[in-house]
Amino acid sequence: MRDVAVIGVGLTKFGEIWDRSFRQLIVEAGSKAILDAGIEGKDIDAMYVGSMSSGRFIGQEHVGALVADASGFYNLHIPSTRVEGACASGGLAVRQGYLSVASGVNDIVVIGGIEKMNDVAGTSATETLATAADQEWEAFFGATFPGLYAFIATRHMHEYGTTKEQLAQVAVKNHANGALNPYAQYQKEIKLEHAINATMVAYPLGLLDCSPVTDGSAAVVLCSAERAKEFTDTPVKIIGAGQASDSLALHGRRDITTLDATVHAAQMAYKQAKVTSKDIQLAEVHDCFTIAEICAIEDLGFVKKGDGGKAIDNNITTRDGSQPVNTSGGLKAKGHPVGATGVAQIIEIVLQLQGRAEKRQIPDARIGLAHNVGGSGATCTVHIMEGM
Amino acid sequence: MRDVAVIGVGLTKFGEIWDRSFRQLIVEAGSKAILDAGIEGKDIDAMYVGSMSSGRFIGQEHVGALVADASGFYNLHIPSTRVEGACASGGLAVRQGYLSVASGVNDIVVIGGIEKMNDVAGTSATETLATAADQEWEAFFGATFPGLYAFIATRHMHEYGTTKEQLAQVAVKNHANGALNPYAQYQKEIKLEHAINATMVAYPLGLLDCSPVTDGSAAVVLCSAERAKEFTDTPVKIIGAGQASDSLALHGRRDITTLDATVHAAQMAYKQAKVTSKDIQLAEVHDCFTIAEICAIEDLGFVKKGDGGKAIDNNITTRDGSQPVNTSGGLKAKGHPVGATGVAQIIEIVLQLQGRAEKRQIPDARIGLAHNVGGSGATCTVHIMEGM
Repeated sequence: MRDVAVIGVGLTKFGEIWDRSFRQLIVEAGSKAILDAGIEGKDIDAMYVGSMSSGRFIGQEHVGALVADASGFYNLHIPSTRVEGACASGGLAVRQGYLSVASGVNDIVVIGGIEKMNDVAGTSATETLATAADQEWEAFFGATFPGLYAFIATRHMHEYGTTKEQLAQVAVKNHANGALNPYAQYQKEIKLEHAINATMVAYPLGLLDCSPVTDGSAAVVLCSAERAKEFTDTPVKIIGAGQASDSLALHGRRDITTLDATVHAAQMAYKQAKVTSKDIQLAEVHDCFTIAEICAIEDLGFVKKGDGGKAIDNNITTRDGSQPVNTSGGLKAKGHPVGATGVAQIIEIVLQLQGRAEKRQIPDARIGLAHNVGGSGATCTVHIMEGM
Repeated sequence: MRDVAVIGVGLTKFGEIWDRSFRQLIVEAGSKAILDAGIEGKDIDAMYVGSMSSGRFIGQEHVGALVADASGFYNLHIPSTRVEGACASGGLAVRQGYLSVASGVNDIVVIGGIEKMNDVAGTSATETLATAADQEWEAFFGATFPGLYAFIATRHMHEYGTTKEQLAQVAVKNHANGALNPYAQYQKEIKLEHAINATMVAYPLGLLDCSPVTDGSAAVVLCSAERAKEFTDTPVKIIGAGQASDSLALHGRRDITTLDATVHAAQMAYKQAKVTSKDIQLAEVHDCFTIAEICAIEDLGFVKKGDGGKAIDNNITTRDGSQPVNTSGGLKAKGHPVGATGVAQIIEIVLQLQGRAEKRQIPDARIGLAHNVGGSGATCTVHIMEGM
């Protein structure tokens, strides 16, 4: 396998976007990424698209071909493949594109992630998101994701003494970061008391413990590392890529406070990258709920199991902490267009490693990690990146 | 890239299956493939699942993880990825699995295809299938696939003098083949007069010109060719793999009687396999409608453009013809569980090349081709296989 680098990135603003369609959003993100890389359509060997539920949200499956078409590339007949793994669809799409370049099959690949979750017909976002859970054992009986993550949170509180205030602090931190991100859905800080006292959704998770319903798209261009400097002075190498699965339903897990898919995907990525968790200088982790960030930093090995809540108290994961987490604002404040999220996480790490993260720049960042989760943890991808 | 071989195959019976669920079907197909290959769960490096619209049909996205879980492999945390490209989802899944082994990333990969289209809630099969068309330009205005393929058929009749009788002959041939396939949905012959006089769906396509709504699953196990003989005496090598895209809507095509995605995917596969269309001894082509088989044999180069109808008159594509097509019964008689179809096509070619096709065996078959199409032709995969 050969080395692979990110040579271009593109993002739409995340939020409730009522005036642009699914295809307009992904074409915007893709065009920005292509311009950023300085390539043209004829340079592209393949495209991958991550989208969780375009079929239910907008009545459109077959979005690989849609994107190749809407981009104006249909006359080039570029192979274009949609990949789905619930909220990890973006991470999976990056992984497939990465593997296709690492293998030498393709030289230049564009990967897009997209979800249009507002202004949709015939279904609610919550109901469609629940199709990422086990339909027969969870969703059918009324379980939705706030409820499933509430199970995880109460168990974590019981086992490790994690507090509702610590959960709230994750939201406060991520909103503070999102306030500095012009692409974020919520560019405003929140106060701890508001997070603690927000409308209850599923105890202990209040409204400000939950990521929002978001429209948005993100795209990256990958290239073999040997050719990357033809396109940009600051390519970012993908030095480790991991993927793992777990039981779809929460009841199948060994321990519901541990996402074994994260543990295994991280081990795969660390091993390939020849680094340990201590070498990771910043990370974007999958904070669909505040408790998810606490579990993630434990499962990725940033802190030991059970210490995720204390890490927040100790400011380890703030922008001036020893391992900043979710400098973009995370899913919580940046927003969570589910198919786009995994791609957008990669973009934040790339911008940080390139020194392009503006007001939220972490000085001298060299190695970063992106962690994307599907459902309550049945799919996970981890990518580790290093500036070249 | 290294050579890749199919070392195991598994199929469920295709049809209206009211007594088994989505997960039961794919576990059945996958278990059969794994047993056929003589491997165990711990041997599997990755899984790929092709499914078009599990989200709409059964309210379940995230079916990559579902399949790893339902197979009993969740404790192995095997990376499992769902791939979607409408009715080409199965072919795309095989292609992704193939690339991952060809690249050396994985040694042994299991690929499943699945669709459960009967006994579904809240949507009709026709409405969900229309999400493979362009929602904004076609489906929203009421276009469904019989109508779109009727456009193709009437244009082909106008340009090349193709007749309704020739269309009907495709159905008669494929039912004659399906009658010999114990896994086919319709194991019975039909008469030409019945095909010609069947209830009209969208002129010139009558009921017997259309593939049915089908439940079913198919799975294959791929392995590096160098290790294939550890598992089976009769591995079948994939010697060429192509994929291409085209405009999602029919109105974007250069010529609606030509599927340029087929032309480009076939060129890619022929080039890699170092063969021409003349070397293909038998093929499974995507006959979602009878006209689609006529276009396919032209676009694959078996006959020259416009001669697809005459090829049927001349018995070129019957089991005793020079290039037998759809010996399995094709989508028409075997059935068309959309996500499973591309995988099932590969299985028919493998069985033929292994001499395991029983009553429908083509003697001395050595090189075969599988051709899978998404929608009205916006996605196409072509795989060329050779016995080892």
